[in-house]
Amino acid sequence: MKYFLTEDQTPRHYYNISADITEPLLPPLHPKTKKPVGPEDLAPLFPMELIKQEVSKDRYVEIPDEVRSLYNLYRPSPLVRATRLEKQLKTPARIYFKYEGGSPSGSHKTNTALAQAYYNKQEGIKKIVTETGAGQWGTALSFACAQFDLECEVFMVRGSYDQKPYRKVIMETYGATVHASPSTITATGRAQLEKEPSSLGSLGIAISEAVEVAIQDSKTHYALGSVLNHVLLHQTIIGQETLKQFELANDYPDVVIAPLGGGSNFAGLAFPFVGEMLRGGKAVRAIAVEPASCPKLTRGVFGYDFGDSAGFTPLLPMYSLGHDFMPPGLHAGGLRYHGASALCSHLLNMKKIEAVALQQLECFEAGLLFAKTEGILPAPEATHAIAQAIREANQAKENGEERVIVFNLCGHGHFDMSAYEDYCKGQLKNHSIEQAVLEKSIRSVQLVPEEIS
Amino acid sequence: MKYFLTEDQTPRHYYNISADITEPLLPPLHPKTKKPVGPEDLAPLFPMELIKQEVSKDRYVEIPDEVRSLYNLYRPSPLVRATRLEKQLKTPARIYFKYEGGSPSGSHKTNTALAQAYYNKQEGIKKIVTETGAGQWGTALSFACAQFDLECEVFMVRGSYDQKPYRKVIMETYGATVHASPSTITATGRAQLEKEPSSLGSLGIAISEAVEVAIQDSKTHYALGSVLNHVLLHQTIIGQETLKQFELANDYPDVVIAPLGGGSNFAGLAFPFVGEMLRGGKAVRAIAVEPASCPKLTRGVFGYDFGDSAGFTPLLPMYSLGHDFMPPGLHAGGLRYHGASALCSHLLNMKKIEAVALQQLECFEAGLLFAKTEGILPAPEATHAIAQAIREANQAKENGEERVIVFNLCGHGHFDMSAYEDYCKGQLKNHSIEQAVLEKSIRSVQLVPEEIS
Repeated sequence: MKYFLTEDQTPRHYYNISADITEPLLPPLHPKTKKPVGPEDLAPLFPMELIKQEVSKDRYVEIPDEVRSLYNLYRPSPLVRATRLEKQLKTPARIYFKYEGGSPSGSHKTNTALAQAYYNKQEGIKKIVTETGAGQWGTALSFACAQFDLECEVFMVRGSYDQKPYRKVIMETYGATVHASPSTITATGRAQLEKEPSSLGSLGIAISEAVEVAIQDSKTHYALGSVLNHVLLHQTIIGQETLKQFELANDYPDVVIAPLGGGSNFAGLAFPFVGEMLRGGKAVRAIAVEPASCPKLTRGVFGYDFGDSAGFTPLLPMYSLGHDFMPPGLHAGGLRYHGASALCSHLLNMKKIEAVALQQLECFEAGLLFAKTEGILPAPEATHAIAQAIREANQAKENGEERVIVFNLCGHGHFDMSAYEDYCKGQLKNHSIEQAVLEKSIRSVQLVPEEIS
Repeated sequence: MKYFLTEDQTPRHYYNISADITEPLLPPLHPKTKKPVGPEDLAPLFPMELIKQEVSKDRYVEIPDEVRSLYNLYRPSPLVRATRLEKQLKTPARIYFKYEGGSPSGSHKTNTALAQAYYNKQEGIKKIVTETGAGQWGTALSFACAQFDLECEVFMVRGSYDQKPYRKVIMETYGATVHASPSTITATGRAQLEKEPSSLGSLGIAISEAVEVAIQDSKTHYALGSVLNHVLLHQTIIGQETLKQFELANDYPDVVIAPLGGGSNFAGLAFPFVGEMLRGGKAVRAIAVEPASCPKLTRGVFGYDFGDSAGFTPLLPMYSLGHDFMPPGLHAGGLRYHGASALCSHLLNMKKIEAVALQQLECFEAGLLFAKTEGILPAPEATHAIAQAIREANQAKENGEERVIVFNLCGHGHFDMSAYEDYCKGQLKNHSIEQAVLEKSIRSVQLVPEEIS
């Protein structure tokens, strides 16, 4: 059973959860002075409109007409009741999923890519440089740049670059230039390769490379696919649509689930529901699912850390494993990030959201069950949400209780077939991170300075 | 602009164009006796319900509830007005496309796969064997068999098998066994490999291999992904939905376009519109688009020919290039078939439909333009329809006339990235088939026996 909205029922505004958070967020700090950063510090990288969104306290930010018209290429996305999965699980729970895989990049990333490309174009920018992990963000930005005649350059984490050769091709199809990261074309990349010639890379390194290229030219900007407030903001169209679709279904979730890499996937679905709760509406359990091999929310620490490995970015207040944490080459490349967005971290501190870490074999098993019952082969990132939804459904069954579950099926797995091939051949394994390794890596997370806390 | 139907607006019946064709079709003939085949001749390969559909003259055939419920996993599919493409072309034409790529196999093939698996299950069959060209049909049948707990074995044309390794993985993900064809496990395959060890294969050879396996066991059946009347019948849900969606759009097409490999893609969209016309409704130009490198409709001859290369199948009345025609290794694997379905061939003879052959470079160029403007990367087969739609739109512009065009975007190209890679690198070329080669190959098409014509 699918719940569709018409195009004129889609949101006209992004929802900004900052307006509904009473305990104030800590500010980002300048990497050198350790004073709160101002707009002028960010202007070499981002257009002013996005910087304003980054610090805005307005509850709603209008979606520009041109962006909304592009959203209509693939939105509103369906909310689907997973009745065949429910039947297979013999659960009394009602399971819904929001499907974001119908977008041009095959994932939710297109939602923010189009907005970011638009605001950059408005400011006269000619080129955008970025990083990509799983390749979904890079694909999304390539497509978005093609819509606004912007050049696009992508640093793709080496592990994913090798696992998913066709991600590179689709980015090139949309006109982008793609480098494996660490690359030899930046100082950061060369330093990393010197340290570890066979480095699989990480999002942190790829971000440093992209920032390094972006700051060299005034008509070139940088774009980030998650973590920052404005990115999370753009994704809230997902949850806002879902709220309306639950009205059509005459239902409301008890549990809202999404994978968490940097936080925008989770925020996209969960924040509109958490916002309702913060404003006195119905309570939901919002659960962020991270991989056990990159467990910042469940095993990291809260403090100030860099967004990238080289320390070019502002210090952000977040749960982190340390900015040089090197996650194992797990197949959910989009979840291999060392930190969680400031907003998600803050809400976890406030106990308004929950976090859980899952191993990849359980996730792939859940993904295959989902493909066989619901007909969509999920991206490895998305399998984390499915696995948690199945846990919740099984618990509901044990307790003999109705439970309404919704999760974000953030993308399809058509470019992740090598992961499924490995899984089907029994060649995938779970990763456990030793406590000693974590403790060492976490040391680079800085305490909140006294004058700020 | 997208036009959605609700699930309860989807068709409850398949539409059988035979009911509206006044000039009778020629019957299929037994390969040895050359007498019309009876149900008993087909029973070793197909369930009786499908054999009945093959010869039915009823205008409507009810869709079983279980099949309809499975259709609801991905149907109704959207009809989309391609406004960004129109703008790019600066055409006064209105261009619509019906998008079938949201199905579990990523193409329209799922529509008939589910029906065929269902009827086989009803008859107590345990296993289905088939062939696949581009891999879409094999994927669809693998998924469908998983829904009904049937074993599935697929012979995949070697050319596609090598070009698209991940097609194999997705079929295995759904539980199927996949062989490259020609294989060493059938007599047909071995004979072909002896003749030509590096054979790229063809649909004709793969069909022979699948039939050879199927006839060896009474609980095993064969399934075909196109060509036969019952396959075309199942696909008519596409055009029936489209008719209703044009009511929502308050519009009606002048031109209906789809690619033609065996005929089911074309029939799926076009037959409900052609049927309206045959019953006295509005006239449409229904255009079947074939590749210039496999031009059965535009350069083949009408007569009786085998459906497969080894001559196991009945003789079918159709346009054919000869059953041992070996098409070049073009990238639209789904269009590399030597013959066109009897129904499509008959309608072409009656001048109720048109045919055109296009070169692959024009098609890929059209595919990329479509991806950049409408955000969906099309399957190479689908690019043939896009290219023809663009020709029609450009002609409308030249003539300064409004023209309403609809085409079948039969699938996405996520498993065809090697083709796009080759195209972007300038490594693809057009193929021209020499007249002498065609003439030789066409000799195997048999004249219609006098006592039948």
